[in-house]
Amino acid sequence: MSATESPAELRARIRDGSFVGNTSGLAPGFVQCNIVILPSSYAADFMRFCQLNPKPCPLVASAGAAGQTGLPGLGEIDIRTDVPGYRVFRDGVLEQECADISDLWTEDLVTFALGCSFSFEEALIADGLEVRNVTEGGNVPMYRTTLPCAQAGPFGGDMVVSMRPFAAADAIRAIQICTRFPSVHGAPVHLGDPAEIGILDLDKPDYGDAVTLKPGEMPVFWACGVTPQVALERAKPSVCITHSPGMMLVTDLRNSKLAVM
Amino acid sequence: MSATESPAELRARIRDGSFVGNTSGLAPGFVQCNIVILPSSYAADFMRFCQLNPKPCPLVASAGAAGQTGLPGLGEIDIRTDVPGYRVFRDGVLEQECADISDLWTEDLVTFALGCSFSFEEALIADGLEVRNVTEGGNVPMYRTTLPCAQAGPFGGDMVVSMRPFAAADAIRAIQICTRFPSVHGAPVHLGDPAEIGILDLDKPDYGDAVTLKPGEMPVFWACGVTPQVALERAKPSVCITHSPGMMLVTDLRNSKLAVM
Repeated sequence: MSATESPAELRARIRDGSFVGNTSGLAPGFVQCNIVILPSSYAADFMRFCQLNPKPCPLVASAGAAGQTGLPGLGEIDIRTDVPGYRVFRDGVLEQECADISDLWTEDLVTFALGCSFSFEEALIADGLEVRNVTEGGNVPMYRTTLPCAQAGPFGGDMVVSMRPFAAADAIRAIQICTRFPSVHGAPVHLGDPAEIGILDLDKPDYGDAVTLKPGEMPVFWACGVTPQVALERAKPSVCITHSPGMMLVTDLRNSKLAVM
Repeated sequence: MSATESPAELRARIRDGSFVGNTSGLAPGFVQCNIVILPSSYAADFMRFCQLNPKPCPLVASAGAAGQTGLPGLGEIDIRTDVPGYRVFRDGVLEQECADISDLWTEDLVTFALGCSFSFEEALIADGLEVRNVTEGGNVPMYRTTLPCAQAGPFGGDMVVSMRPFAAADAIRAIQICTRFPSVHGAPVHLGDPAEIGILDLDKPDYGDAVTLKPGEMPVFWACGVTPQVALERAKPSVCITHSPGMMLVTDLRNSKLAVM
Protein backbone atom coordinates (compact mmCIF):
# COMPACT_ATOMS: atom_id res chain seq x y z
CA MET A 1 0.00 0.00 0.00
CA SER A 2 1.20 3.52 -0.71
CA ALA A 3 -0.20 6.91 0.19
CA THR A 4 -0.63 7.67 -3.49
CA GLU A 5 -2.54 4.47 -4.32
CA SER A 6 -5.43 5.32 -6.61
CA PRO A 7 -9.01 4.40 -5.71
CA ALA A 8 -9.02 1.84 -8.55
CA GLU A 9 -5.80 0.25 -7.28
CA LEU A 10 -7.19 0.07 -3.76
CA ARG A 11 -10.44 -1.47 -5.02
CA ALA A 12 -8.43 -4.07 -6.95
CA ARG A 13 -6.72 -5.12 -3.71
CA ILE A 14 -10.08 -5.21 -1.94
CA ARG A 15 -11.55 -7.26 -4.80
CA ASP A 16 -8.83 -9.92 -4.71
CA GLY A 17 -8.90 -10.10 -0.91
CA SER A 18 -5.39 -8.73 -0.30
CA PHE A 19 -6.81 -5.72 1.53
CA VAL A 20 -9.29 -6.16 4.36
CA GLY A 21 -10.02 -3.41 6.87
CA ASN A 22 -11.08 0.12 7.57
CA THR A 23 -10.87 2.56 4.65
CA SER A 24 -10.59 5.70 6.79
CA GLY A 25 -7.73 7.88 5.52
CA LEU A 26 -7.13 5.77 2.39
CA ALA A 27 -7.28 7.24 -1.14
CA PRO A 28 -7.33 10.78 0.26
CA GLY A 29 -9.25 13.27 -1.87
CA PHE A 30 -11.75 10.71 -3.13
CA VAL A 31 -15.34 10.11 -2.08
CA GLN A 32 -16.10 7.09 0.09
CA CYS A 33 -19.68 5.88 0.26
CA ASN A 34 -22.06 4.10 2.58
CA ILE A 35 -23.71 1.20 0.74
CA VAL A 36 -27.28 -0.10 0.98
CA ILE A 37 -28.47 -3.04 -1.16
CA LEU A 38 -32.17 -3.96 -1.11
CA PRO A 39 -34.68 -6.14 -2.97
CA SER A 40 -36.36 -4.23 -5.79
CA SER A 41 -39.69 -4.18 -3.95
CA TYR A 42 -38.14 -1.83 -1.37
CA ALA A 43 -36.12 0.29 -3.80
CA ALA A 44 -38.65 2.97 -4.67
CA ASP A 45 -39.55 3.61 -1.02
CA PHE A 46 -35.91 3.72 0.02
CA MET A 47 -35.06 6.15 -2.75
CA ARG A 48 -37.98 8.33 -1.71
CA PHE A 49 -36.80 8.15 1.91
CA CYS A 50 -33.42 9.49 0.74
CA GLN A 51 -35.07 12.20 -1.33
CA LEU A 52 -37.19 13.31 1.63
CA ASN A 53 -34.28 13.23 4.08
CA PRO A 54 -31.29 14.45 2.06
CA LYS A 55 -29.19 15.53 5.03
CA PRO A 56 -28.97 12.13 6.79
CA CYS A 57 -29.41 10.15 3.53
CA PRO A 58 -27.51 11.97 0.76
CA LEU A 59 -27.79 9.76 -2.30
CA VAL A 60 -24.59 10.00 -4.36
CA ALA A 61 -25.43 7.24 -6.87
CA SER A 62 -27.73 4.28 -7.42
CA ALA A 63 -27.60 1.30 -9.75
CA GLY A 64 -29.34 1.95 -13.07
CA ALA A 65 -31.58 -1.09 -12.56
CA ALA A 66 -32.08 -4.15 -10.34
CA GLY A 67 -29.26 -6.66 -10.71
CA GLN A 68 -26.71 -4.13 -11.96
CA THR A 69 -23.40 -4.39 -10.11
CA GLY A 70 -21.95 -1.05 -11.21
CA LEU A 71 -22.62 2.45 -9.90
CA PRO A 72 -22.74 5.15 -12.60
CA GLY A 73 -20.22 7.94 -12.13
CA LEU A 74 -18.25 6.31 -9.32
CA GLY A 75 -15.70 4.32 -11.38
CA GLU A 76 -15.35 0.72 -12.56
CA ILE A 77 -17.12 -0.94 -9.67
CA ASP A 78 -18.38 -4.44 -8.94
CA ILE A 79 -20.46 -3.93 -5.83
CA ARG A 80 -20.31 -7.67 -5.04
CA THR A 81 -16.57 -7.60 -4.33
CA ASP A 82 -15.35 -4.00 -4.01
CA VAL A 83 -16.37 -3.19 -0.44
CA PRO A 84 -13.93 -4.51 2.21
CA GLY A 85 -16.67 -5.67 4.53
CA TYR A 86 -20.40 -6.33 4.19
CA ARG A 87 -23.20 -6.93 6.66
CA VAL A 88 -26.11 -9.12 5.64
CA PHE A 89 -29.45 -8.69 7.40
CA ARG A 90 -32.52 -10.95 7.06
CA ASP A 91 -35.80 -9.55 8.34
CA GLY A 92 -33.82 -6.84 10.14
CA VAL A 93 -31.50 -9.28 11.97
CA LEU A 94 -27.74 -9.33 11.31
CA GLU A 95 -27.03 -12.74 9.81
CA GLN A 96 -23.37 -12.53 8.77
CA GLU A 97 -20.41 -10.31 8.02
CA CYS A 98 -18.30 -11.13 4.97
CA ALA A 99 -15.85 -9.67 2.45
CA ASP A 100 -17.63 -10.81 -0.74
CA ILE A 101 -21.34 -11.12 -1.55
CA SER A 102 -21.03 -12.78 -4.98
CA ASP A 103 -22.80 -15.91 -3.78
CA LEU A 104 -25.64 -13.86 -2.27
CA TRP A 105 -26.17 -11.71 -5.36
CA THR A 106 -29.45 -11.93 -7.27
CA GLU A 107 -30.90 -10.09 -10.25
CA ASP A 108 -33.48 -8.56 -7.89
CA LEU A 109 -31.03 -6.51 -5.78
CA VAL A 110 -30.77 -2.71 -6.10
CA THR A 111 -27.67 -0.83 -4.88
CA PHE A 112 -27.53 2.65 -3.34
CA ALA A 113 -24.39 4.67 -2.52
CA LEU A 114 -24.73 7.42 0.10
CA GLY A 115 -22.28 10.22 0.93
CA CYS A 116 -20.27 10.03 4.14
CA SER A 117 -18.65 12.46 6.53
CA PHE A 118 -15.08 11.59 5.48
CA SER A 119 -15.53 14.01 2.55
CA PHE A 120 -16.51 17.04 4.60
CA GLU A 121 -14.01 16.24 7.37
CA GLU A 122 -11.30 16.42 4.71
CA ALA A 123 -12.59 19.85 3.63
CA LEU A 124 -12.64 21.09 7.24
CA ILE A 125 -9.08 19.89 7.88
CA ALA A 126 -7.90 21.40 4.57
CA ASP A 127 -9.23 24.74 5.82
CA GLY A 128 -7.15 24.45 8.99
CA LEU A 129 -9.91 23.39 11.36
CA GLU A 130 -9.28 20.68 13.93
CA VAL A 131 -11.66 17.73 13.71
CA ARG A 132 -11.56 16.31 17.21
CA ASN A 133 -12.44 12.68 16.41
CA VAL A 134 -9.60 12.65 13.87
CA THR A 135 -7.16 14.26 16.32
CA GLU A 136 -8.14 11.84 19.08
CA GLY A 137 -8.03 8.85 16.74
CA GLY A 138 -11.47 7.48 17.51
CA ASN A 139 -14.74 7.09 15.66
CA VAL A 140 -16.90 10.22 15.60
CA PRO A 141 -19.46 10.21 18.44
CA MET A 142 -23.00 9.63 17.18
CA TYR A 143 -26.30 10.10 18.97
CA ARG A 144 -29.93 9.20 18.41
CA THR A 145 -32.05 12.36 18.47
CA THR A 146 -35.70 13.36 18.65
CA LEU A 147 -35.51 15.01 15.20
CA PRO A 148 -37.98 13.00 13.08
CA CYS A 149 -37.22 11.86 9.55
CA ALA A 150 -39.94 12.08 6.92
CA GLN A 151 -41.51 8.62 6.43
CA ALA A 152 -41.48 6.79 3.08
CA GLY A 153 -43.22 3.43 3.01
CA PRO A 154 -41.66 1.27 5.72
CA PHE A 155 -38.70 3.64 6.15
CA GLY A 156 -38.75 6.23 8.94
CA GLY A 157 -37.55 6.93 12.46
CA ASP A 158 -35.54 9.65 14.14
CA MET A 159 -32.33 11.18 12.88
CA VAL A 160 -28.93 10.06 14.12
CA VAL A 161 -26.34 12.84 14.30
CA SER A 162 -22.57 12.99 14.58
CA MET A 163 -20.93 15.61 16.80
CA ARG A 164 -17.73 17.62 16.43
CA PRO A 165 -16.83 20.37 18.93
CA PHE A 166 -15.69 23.80 17.73
CA ALA A 167 -15.10 27.28 19.09
CA ALA A 168 -17.86 29.61 17.84
CA ALA A 169 -15.88 31.24 15.03
CA ASP A 170 -14.75 27.82 13.80
CA ALA A 171 -18.33 26.53 14.00
CA ILE A 172 -19.40 29.39 11.72
CA ARG A 173 -16.59 28.55 9.28
CA ALA A 174 -17.51 24.84 9.40
CA ILE A 175 -21.10 25.73 8.48
CA GLN A 176 -19.84 27.71 5.49
CA ILE A 177 -17.56 24.91 4.30
CA CYS A 178 -20.11 22.12 4.72
CA THR A 179 -22.82 24.14 2.98
CA ARG A 180 -20.80 23.61 -0.20
CA PHE A 181 -21.18 19.82 0.19
CA PRO A 182 -24.89 18.95 0.38
CA SER A 183 -24.29 15.41 -0.89
CA VAL A 184 -22.14 14.52 2.11
CA HIS A 185 -24.61 15.62 4.82
CA GLY A 186 -24.24 19.37 4.13
CA ALA A 187 -24.48 22.02 6.83
CA PRO A 188 -24.95 21.00 10.47
CA VAL A 189 -28.51 20.46 11.71
CA HIS A 190 -27.93 21.79 15.22
CA LEU A 191 -25.36 23.41 17.47
CA GLY A 192 -25.28 24.33 21.14
CA ASP A 193 -27.59 22.74 23.70
CA PRO A 194 -27.76 18.95 23.02
CA ALA A 195 -30.98 18.59 25.04
CA GLU A 196 -32.89 20.56 22.42
CA ILE A 197 -32.59 17.59 20.06
CA GLY A 198 -33.01 14.95 22.75
CA ILE A 199 -29.37 14.19 23.55
CA LEU A 200 -29.02 13.81 27.31
CA ASP A 201 -25.31 13.04 27.77
CA LEU A 202 -22.58 13.92 25.27
CA ASP A 203 -20.18 11.60 27.09
CA LYS A 204 -22.38 8.61 26.25
CA PRO A 205 -22.75 8.44 22.46
CA ASP A 206 -25.07 5.77 21.07
CA TYR A 207 -22.40 4.87 18.50
CA GLY A 208 -18.68 5.69 18.17
CA ASP A 209 -16.46 7.22 20.83
CA ALA A 210 -16.91 10.28 23.05
CA VAL A 211 -14.56 13.20 22.30
CA THR A 212 -13.20 16.00 24.48
CA LEU A 213 -15.21 19.23 24.61
CA LYS A 214 -12.76 21.99 25.55
CA PRO A 215 -13.67 25.23 27.39
CA GLY A 216 -15.14 27.76 24.97
CA GLU A 217 -16.23 25.09 22.52
CA MET A 218 -19.77 24.17 21.55
CA PRO A 219 -20.98 20.86 20.17
CA VAL A 220 -21.92 21.02 16.47
CA PHE A 221 -24.19 18.30 15.11
CA TRP A 222 -24.38 16.90 11.59
CA ALA A 223 -27.00 14.53 10.16
CA CYS A 224 -25.36 11.10 10.10
CA GLY A 225 -25.33 8.15 7.75
CA VAL A 226 -26.30 5.82 10.58
CA THR A 227 -29.83 7.27 10.17
CA PRO A 228 -30.67 5.03 7.17
CA GLN A 229 -29.25 2.03 9.04
CA VAL A 230 -31.69 2.70 11.87
CA ALA A 231 -34.48 3.10 9.30
CA LEU A 232 -33.50 -0.29 7.81
CA GLU A 233 -33.52 -1.91 11.28
CA ARG A 234 -37.09 -0.66 11.73
CA ALA A 235 -38.29 -1.57 8.23
CA LYS A 236 -36.92 -5.13 8.49
CA PRO A 237 -36.69 -5.85 4.76
CA SER A 238 -36.55 -9.56 3.89
CA VAL A 239 -32.90 -9.05 2.98
CA CYS A 240 -30.58 -6.07 3.18
CA ILE A 241 -26.84 -5.80 2.61
CA THR A 242 -24.79 -2.82 3.83
CA HIS A 243 -21.08 -2.02 4.20
CA SER A 244 -19.58 -2.86 7.59
CA PRO A 245 -18.97 0.28 9.70
CA GLY A 246 -15.81 2.06 8.56
CA MET A 247 -15.36 -0.25 5.57
CA MET A 248 -16.63 1.97 2.80
CA LEU A 249 -16.84 1.84 -0.96
CA VAL A 250 -13.88 3.88 -2.23
CA THR A 251 -14.85 5.65 -5.46
CA ASP A 252 -13.09 7.45 -8.31
CA LEU A 253 -15.13 10.61 -7.62
CA ARG A 254 -13.10 13.46 -6.18
CA ASN A 255 -14.43 15.07 -2.99
CA SER A 256 -14.04 18.48 -4.63
CA LYS A 257 -16.52 17.44 -7.35
CA LEU A 258 -19.24 17.29 -4.70
CA ALA A 259 -18.89 21.02 -4.00
CA VAL A 260 -21.97 22.80 -5.36
CA MET A 261 -19.99 26.03 -5.69
CA MET B 1 -44.43 58.83 -0.29
CA SER B 2 -45.43 55.45 -1.70
CA ALA B 3 -44.18 51.95 -1.03
CA THR B 4 -43.05 51.71 -4.65
CA GLU B 5 -41.06 54.95 -4.64
CA SER B 6 -37.76 54.40 -6.43
CA PRO B 7 -34.44 55.14 -4.72
CA ALA B 8 -33.91 58.07 -7.14
CA GLU B 9 -37.35 59.52 -6.30
CA LEU B 10 -36.66 59.18 -2.59
CA ARG B 11 -33.25 60.83 -2.98
CA ALA B 12 -34.89 63.69 -4.88
CA ARG B 13 -37.21 64.32 -1.92
CA ILE B 14 -34.27 64.11 0.47
CA ARG B 15 -32.28 66.52 -1.73
CA ASP B 16 -35.01 69.18 -1.83
CA GLY B 17 -35.69 68.83 1.91
CA SER B 18 -39.23 67.45 1.62
CA PHE B 19 -38.15 64.20 3.27
CA VAL B 20 -36.26 64.21 6.55
CA GLY B 21 -35.98 61.14 8.76
CA ASN B 22 -35.03 57.53 9.17
CA THR B 23 -34.63 55.52 5.96
CA SER B 24 -35.28 52.11 7.55
CA GLY B 25 -37.80 50.17 5.45
CA LEU B 26 -37.81 52.68 2.59
CA ALA B 27 -36.97 51.72 -1.01
CA PRO B 28 -37.14 48.02 -0.13
CA GLY B 29 -34.81 45.81 -2.16
CA PHE B 30 -32.14 48.50 -2.55
CA VAL B 31 -28.84 48.90 -0.75
CA GLN B 32 -28.54 51.59 1.91
CA CYS B 33 -25.08 52.75 2.93
CA ASN B 34 -23.22 54.15 5.90
CA ILE B 35 -21.29 57.26 4.84
CA VAL B 36 -17.86 58.47 5.95
CA ILE B 37 -16.32 61.65 4.51
CA LEU B 38 -12.72 62.51 5.38
CA PRO B 39 -9.94 64.90 4.37
CA SER B 40 -7.71 63.38 1.69
CA SER B 41 -4.79 63.05 4.13
CA TYR B 42 -6.79 60.38 6.00
CA ALA B 43 -8.25 58.66 2.96
CA ALA B 44 -5.55 56.07 2.23
CA ASP B 45 -5.36 54.93 5.86
CA PHE B 46 -9.14 54.72 6.15
CA MET B 47 -9.40 52.70 2.96
CA ARG B 48 -6.71 50.37 4.24
CA PHE B 49 -8.58 50.07 7.54
CA CYS B 50 -11.65 48.94 5.57
CA GLN B 51 -9.58 46.52 3.50
CA LEU B 52 -8.05 44.99 6.65
CA ASN B 53 -11.39 44.75 8.47
CA PRO B 54 -13.92 43.86 5.77
CA LYS B 55 -16.53 42.39 8.11
CA PRO B 56 -17.14 45.53 10.22
CA CYS B 57 -16.11 47.94 7.41
CA PRO B 58 -17.41 46.55 4.11
CA LEU B 59 -16.57 49.15 1.48
CA VAL B 60 -19.31 49.24 -1.16
CA ALA B 61 -18.06 52.30 -3.05
CA SER B 62 -15.73 55.28 -2.74
CA ALA B 63 -15.45 58.54 -4.62
CA GLY B 64 -13.08 58.35 -7.58
CA ALA B 65 -11.03 61.27 -6.22
CA ALA B 66 -11.04 63.98 -3.57
CA GLY B 67 -13.77 66.53 -4.14
CA GLN B 68 -15.97 64.24 -6.19
CA THR B 69 -19.61 64.28 -4.99
CA GLY B 70 -20.77 61.14 -6.78
CA LEU B 71 -20.30 57.48 -5.88
CA PRO B 72 -19.62 55.19 -8.87
CA GLY B 73 -22.14 52.39 -9.29
CA LEU B 74 -24.64 53.64 -6.70
CA GLY B 75 -26.78 55.92 -8.91
CA GLU B 76 -26.96 59.66 -9.63
CA ILE B 77 -25.79 60.89 -6.26
CA ASP B 78 -24.75 64.23 -4.82
CA ILE B 79 -23.30 63.27 -1.47
CA ARG B 80 -23.66 66.87 -0.22
CA THR B 81 -27.47 66.73 -0.26
CA ASP B 82 -28.67 63.15 -0.69
CA VAL B 83 -28.36 61.85 2.87
CA PRO B 84 -31.29 62.82 5.15
CA GLY B 85 -29.05 63.62 8.10
CA TYR B 86 -25.34 64.28 8.59
CA ARG B 87 -23.09 64.51 11.61
CA VAL B 88 -20.06 66.79 11.48
CA PHE B 89 -17.12 66.08 13.79
CA ARG B 90 -14.07 68.33 14.35
CA ASP B 91 -11.07 66.70 16.05
CA GLY B 92 -13.34 63.82 17.05
CA VAL B 93 -15.98 66.00 18.70
CA LEU B 94 -19.55 66.19 17.35
CA GLU B 95 -20.03 69.78 16.20
CA GLN B 96 -23.40 69.75 14.47
CA GLU B 97 -26.13 67.68 12.85
CA CYS B 98 -27.61 68.94 9.61
CA ALA B 99 -29.52 67.88 6.46
CA ASP B 100 -27.16 69.42 3.88
CA ILE B 101 -23.38 69.80 3.84
CA SER B 102 -23.05 71.93 0.69
CA ASP B 103 -21.58 74.85 2.64
CA LEU B 104 -19.06 72.55 4.35
CA TRP B 105 -17.91 70.85 1.16
CA THR B 106 -14.32 71.28 -0.04
CA GLU B 107 -12.30 69.85 -2.89
CA ASP B 108 -10.20 67.99 -0.31
CA LEU B 109 -12.97 65.69 0.98
CA VAL B 110 -13.12 61.97 0.09
CA THR B 111 -16.36 60.00 0.42
CA PHE B 112 -16.74 56.34 1.41
CA ALA B 113 -19.94 54.25 1.33
CA LEU B 114 -20.08 51.16 3.55
CA GLY B 115 -22.60 48.32 3.50
CA CYS B 116 -25.20 48.09 6.25
CA SER B 117 -27.21 45.36 7.93
CA PHE B 118 -30.51 46.41 6.33
CA SER B 119 -29.47 44.41 3.25
CA PHE B 120 -28.87 41.12 5.03
CA GLU B 121 -31.86 41.56 7.33
CA GLU B 122 -34.00 41.78 4.20
CA ALA B 123 -32.47 38.52 2.93
CA LEU B 124 -33.11 36.79 6.28
CA ILE B 125 -36.73 37.93 6.37
CA ALA B 126 -37.25 36.92 2.73
CA ASP B 127 -36.14 33.42 3.74
CA GLY B 128 -38.79 33.29 6.47
CA LEU B 129 -36.55 33.98 9.45
CA GLU B 130 -37.72 36.33 12.19
CA VAL B 131 -35.38 39.26 12.83
CA ARG B 132 -36.14 40.19 16.42
CA ASN B 133 -35.21 43.88 16.29
CA VAL B 134 -37.51 44.30 13.27
CA THR B 135 -40.34 42.39 14.97
CA GLU B 136 -39.96 44.41 18.16
CA GLY B 137 -39.65 47.68 16.27
CA GLY B 138 -36.45 48.91 17.88
CA ASN B 139 -32.89 49.49 16.77
CA VAL B 140 -30.73 46.39 16.72
CA PRO B 141 -28.75 45.98 19.98
CA MET B 142 -25.05 46.69 19.51
CA TYR B 143 -22.14 45.93 21.83
CA ARG B 144 -18.47 46.83 22.11
CA THR B 145 -16.36 43.67 22.15
CA THR B 146 -12.80 42.62 22.89
CA LEU B 147 -12.30 41.47 19.28
CA PRO B 148 -9.50 43.71 17.98
CA CYS B 149 -9.59 45.34 14.55
CA ALA B 150 -6.39 45.44 12.50
CA GLN B 151 -4.81 48.91 12.79
CA ALA B 152 -4.22 51.19 9.77
CA GLY B 153 -2.55 54.51 10.50
CA PRO B 154 -4.65 56.29 13.13
CA PHE B 155 -7.60 53.93 12.65
CA GLY B 156 -8.05 50.98 15.00
CA GLY B 157 -9.89 49.81 18.11
CA ASP B 158 -12.15 46.91 18.98
CA MET B 159 -15.02 45.61 16.92
CA VAL B 160 -18.62 46.60 17.62
CA VAL B 161 -21.17 43.85 16.93
CA SER B 162 -24.91 43.72 16.44
CA MET B 163 -26.91 40.84 17.92
CA ARG B 164 -29.94 38.93 16.69
CA PRO B 165 -31.28 35.88 18.56
CA PHE B 166 -32.11 32.67 16.70
CA ALA B 167 -32.89 29.04 17.45
CA ALA B 168 -29.91 26.87 16.46
CA ALA B 169 -31.30 25.65 13.14
CA ASP B 170 -32.22 29.22 12.18
CA ALA B 171 -28.77 30.43 13.22
CA ILE B 172 -27.23 27.89 10.84
CA ARG B 173 -29.54 29.08 8.05
CA ALA B 174 -28.71 32.73 8.82
CA ILE B 175 -24.99 31.93 8.51
CA GLN B 176 -25.62 30.38 5.10
CA ILE B 177 -27.66 33.34 3.88
CA CYS B 178 -25.28 36.03 5.15
CA THR B 179 -22.26 34.23 3.71
CA ARG B 180 -23.65 35.21 0.30
CA PHE B 181 -23.40 38.90 1.25
CA PRO B 182 -19.81 39.70 2.27
CA SER B 183 -20.21 43.38 1.40
CA VAL B 184 -22.91 43.88 4.04
CA HIS B 185 -20.98 42.39 6.99
CA GLY B 186 -21.16 38.77 5.75
CA ALA B 187 -21.42 35.78 8.06
CA PRO B 188 -21.67 36.30 11.82
CA VAL B 189 -18.42 36.62 13.78
CA HIS B 190 -19.65 34.84 16.91
CA LEU B 191 -22.56 32.95 18.39
CA GLY B 192 -23.35 31.56 21.82
CA ASP B 193 -21.60 32.77 24.97
CA PRO B 194 -21.37 36.61 24.85
CA ALA B 195 -18.60 36.65 27.49
CA GLU B 196 -16.18 35.02 25.05
CA ILE B 197 -16.06 38.28 23.08
CA GLY B 198 -16.21 40.53 26.13
CA ILE B 199 -19.96 41.22 26.32
CA LEU B 200 -21.03 41.10 29.95
CA ASP B 201 -24.77 41.85 29.78
CA LEU B 202 -26.95 41.35 26.70
CA ASP B 203 -29.67 43.43 28.34
CA LYS B 204 -27.41 46.48 28.34
CA PRO B 205 -26.33 47.15 24.76
CA ASP B 206 -23.82 49.95 24.21
CA TYR B 207 -25.95 51.22 21.31
CA GLY B 208 -29.51 50.48 20.17
CA ASP B 209 -32.20 48.65 22.10
CA ALA B 210 -32.14 45.32 23.93
CA VAL B 211 -34.25 42.55 22.39
CA THR B 212 -35.97 39.49 23.84
CA LEU B 213 -33.96 36.26 23.92
CA LYS B 214 -36.52 33.43 24.00
CA PRO B 215 -35.93 29.96 25.53
CA GLY B 216 -33.99 27.76 23.12
CA GLU B 217 -32.48 30.72 21.31
CA MET B 218 -28.84 31.73 21.17
CA PRO B 219 -27.43 35.18 20.51
CA VAL B 220 -25.80 35.50 17.07
CA PHE B 221 -23.34 38.37 16.56
CA TRP B 222 -22.49 40.22 13.35
CA ALA B 223 -19.68 42.72 12.80
CA CYS B 224 -21.33 46.15 12.90
CA GLY B 225 -20.96 49.41 11.00
CA VAL B 226 -20.58 51.31 14.26
CA THR B 227 -17.03 49.89 14.34
CA PRO B 228 -15.65 52.50 11.89
CA GLN B 229 -17.45 55.24 13.85
CA VAL B 230 -15.59 54.15 16.99
CA ALA B 231 -12.35 54.09 14.97
CA LEU B 232 -13.10 57.65 13.82
CA GLU B 233 -13.76 58.78 17.41
CA ARG B 234 -10.34 57.43 18.37
CA ALA B 235 -8.49 58.81 15.33
CA LYS B 236 -9.93 62.32 15.82
CA PRO B 237 -9.45 63.55 12.25
CA SER B 238 -9.47 67.32 11.86
CA VAL B 239 -12.87 67.02 10.21
CA CYS B 240 -15.15 64.04 9.55
CA ILE B 241 -18.70 63.90 8.24
CA THR B 242 -20.90 60.81 8.63
CA HIS B 243 -24.58 60.00 8.14
CA SER B 244 -26.74 60.39 11.25
CA PRO B 245 -27.70 56.99 12.74
CA GLY B 246 -30.55 55.41 10.78
CA MET B 247 -30.44 58.12 8.11
CA MET B 248 -28.63 56.28 5.36
CA LEU B 249 -27.72 56.94 1.76
CA VAL B 250 -30.35 55.13 -0.32
CA THR B 251 -28.73 53.79 -3.51
CA ASP B 252 -29.87 52.43 -6.88
CA LEU B 253 -27.97 49.19 -6.25
CA ARG B 254 -30.19 46.17 -5.62
CA ASN B 255 -29.47 44.12 -2.49
CA SER B 256 -29.49 40.98 -4.63
CA LYS B 257 -26.56 42.34 -6.66
CA LEU B 258 -24.40 42.11 -3.52
CA ALA B 259 -24.82 38.32 -3.42
CA VAL B 260 -21.51 36.71 -4.39
CA MET B 261 -23.33 33.58 -5.52
